[in-house]
Amino acid sequence: MRHRLDLAPRPDVLERLRGASDAEHDDALARAFLGFLVEPGDGIAGRLVAAVGPVEAAALVASDPPPEALAVLLADPGEAAPLAAARAALERWRPRLDRAAFARSLEQAARVGATLLAPGDADWPAGLDDLGDHAPLALWVRGRPSALLDGTAVAIVGARAATSYGTLVAGELADGLAMRGGLVVSGGAYGIDGAAHRAALAAGGTTVAFLAGGVDRFYPAGHEDLLGRVAALGAVASEVPIGSAPTKWRFLQRNRLIAAAAAATVVVEAGHRSGSLNTAAHAAQLGRPLGAVPGPVTSPSSSGSHRLLREHDALCVTNAAEVWELAGGGEPGRLRGGHGSPEAGSTGGPSGERRDDTRLRVVDALSTRTPYPVAELARRAGLEPVVVRGALGRLALSGDVAERGGGWVRTG
Amino acid sequence: MRHRLDLAPRPDVLERLRGASDAEHDDALARAFLGFLVEPGDGIAGRLVAAVGPVEAAALVASDPPPEALAVLLADPGEAAPLAAARAALERWRPRLDRAAFARSLEQAARVGATLLAPGDADWPAGLDDLGDHAPLALWVRGRPSALLDGTAVAIVGARAATSYGTLVAGELADGLAMRGGLVVSGGAYGIDGAAHRAALAAGGTTVAFLAGGVDRFYPAGHEDLLGRVAALGAVASEVPIGSAPTKWRFLQRNRLIAAAAAATVVVEAGHRSGSLNTAAHAAQLGRPLGAVPGPVTSPSSSGSHRLLREHDALCVTNAAEVWELAGGGEPGRLRGGHGSPEAGSTGGPSGERRDDTRLRVVDALSTRTPYPVAELARRAGLEPVVVRGALGRLALSGDVAERGGGWVRTG
Repeated sequence: MRHRLDLAPRPDVLERLRGASDAEHDDALARAFLGFLVEPGDGIAGRLVAAVGPVEAAALVASDPPPEALAVLLADPGEAAPLAAARAALERWRPRLDRAAFARSLEQAARVGATLLAPGDADWPAGLDDLGDHAPLALWVRGRPSALLDGTAVAIVGARAATSYGTLVAGELADGLAMRGGLVVSGGAYGIDGAAHRAALAAGGTTVAFLAGGVDRFYPAGHEDLLGRVAALGAVASEVPIGSAPTKWRFLQRNRLIAAAAAATVVVEAGHRSGSLNTAAHAAQLGRPLGAVPGPVTSPSSSGSHRLLREHDALCVTNAAEVWELAGGGEPGRLRGGHGSPEAGSTGGPSGERRDDTRLRVVDALSTRTPYPVAELARRAGLEPVVVRGALGRLALSGDVAERGGGWVRTG
Repeated sequence: MRHRLDLAPRPDVLERLRGASDAEHDDALARAFLGFLVEPGDGIAGRLVAAVGPVEAAALVASDPPPEALAVLLADPGEAAPLAAARAALERWRPRLDRAAFARSLEQAARVGATLLAPGDADWPAGLDDLGDHAPLALWVRGRPSALLDGTAVAIVGARAATSYGTLVAGELADGLAMRGGLVVSGGAYGIDGAAHRAALAAGGTTVAFLAGGVDRFYPAGHEDLLGRVAALGAVASEVPIGSAPTKWRFLQRNRLIAAAAAATVVVEAGHRSGSLNTAAHAAQLGRPLGAVPGPVTSPSSSGSHRLLREHDALCVTNAAEVWELAGGGEPGRLRGGHGSPEAGSTGGPSGERRDDTRLRVVDALSTRTPYPVAELARRAGLEPVVVRGALGRLALSGDVAERGGGWVRTG
């Protein structure tokens, strides 16, 4: 049975839902309401929605139910202590059960032109669903929600206190990804994030910023213009309600959205304890490809990237082509080449089996001035005369040797 | 049955063998003689010595035997086409069957104070035996042969055309290794090799240089003083006879000695097709730990190092401690840390289960100016009041919060 929700006046803010059915509208409104009550990543809310759907879940929570009513729904997905979990969740959510405040939040969303994107919408990034119970209930978006699906998404993240090297590389990667039709995802911060957004825009590409606070206020303040352009040409998104401040917790949870929305995550520059390592950890936990851009070992700004390479099996990426390959899925070049490549496979024996080796040894034995007969070349090279003759024949074809005065000289 | 060798007068050059038995002397002399005939890494010579010992092998080859006499010995270790292999080998070796030239080579070795180090000697680096049939027959050494066993050996190699960054890092690694009692092994070249040798000497440590040519002449010429000091305090070694020129082939084969003599190989700086990648490939083929020092992706001098990280599963190493750990054997830190480390493991839910997360969220909710009661902090943090109270208690213990005017403020 579906409840009709009476949480707020049918708000213009859900403009994507103009013309939507009542059920679709209720679904979105219910998600917005639940998102208003919980902190990002609240797994109990996620499990509740998974169990009974957003409308039932919102109606239940809005009724300020006894814990037992919630517990019975949590028991089904296998909560070990459903009553304790239900009691704790309702205690967390109850202080925010303020319909007037929720209505004001929706009005403010309408004023800034934010729209709600919910799972099931055509523009919903499917990657977010991989977060399971911790997936966002919905996203508030300024800009074009469809931007979230503009090509293969790659997260370019890194330190706020970036060096000129880091911002240069971040810009080059974002530029190259945009040129290839990729979508550059980042966190809108100073330093690496900003450089990535800027370069993507400059290349005429699309970029999306996930914020830790509400999308009504662009953070940091110094990026108000930049994030305005990101919203104008792509999208600025957040799971927290309009009017929410960015807190440290919300930054950490925001990072999981960046990792989950992107096909791959690349850390460009990061101090040893940089927040971007948290984004990298989310990517790794989601099983997403993780890249790290190396830098000078003398630069503390690269120590976090090196830590990812050392301890977290990140792939070393040095240019946009390698990042693009990483995001394309599959094994990103780690198995290519190997020890069979010309300059990496000469451990073997010296006989005439390996033409390249033989050629090298005959060239070593030749002089550019003194003509040597084959026998002498064989002695100098430590090769059989027949092998030397064969090599000389091939070298003569390419013009690298010439016969002179009964012997051979190197001409190149 | 052992032949008495009559290849040369019992030479003073084998000074390590003064007082040695006739058999020991003959063994060394036979190896020197075979080494005089073959190019480095000659697997047929290696198999012959493995089959019948060096004295028998040298006596046989010195007798300029018919190929069948050699083939029967090669058939035993399983050569697919022993007669062809024997014929080719004898053709390779015969032009150098010059006893007078061999004797002159020994005399020259005596003049420069070189000594012969052979498998079985107490100072022989056992790691070289891992090269199997391609192991060196013996090493000519200037300096102190025991230097080859002075502590855990680490190869520090890289580009000749190194940047100031590369030489700085090579020096710091070698310094740190020497300080830890390690032995720095390298190739004596300009650039990274030279920086590694120099820093090891400056730190009062031991260092060994493997040369591609004979140890009578230090190569490159500009490193004559440096290699003189390496020989004075450590050792300069080569498998090729005194008087041999360094050829490209011998450089490649020399690289296998560096990789095999060291417990681990580290490439500091290398262009995309640098010779040090060949040393790295030898290390990988020998199953030895391989490290690469990252650098700016904008520097072509680091592109080879990055290639090792990307394609050859080299470990990213950034300081001497990490290199030391790499050479110490076992898994070099790749499995440490993981996603459970504090800043890399916050994907999970928001409940009160994780004390660090709770602390963070309560700190987020606190103000330094406005005192908030517990209920308001719980609302702001999205946590149960009981959880907030517990966190406030712990924060109060550490002096990070204080009660004021019926609420709590952050003091830090």
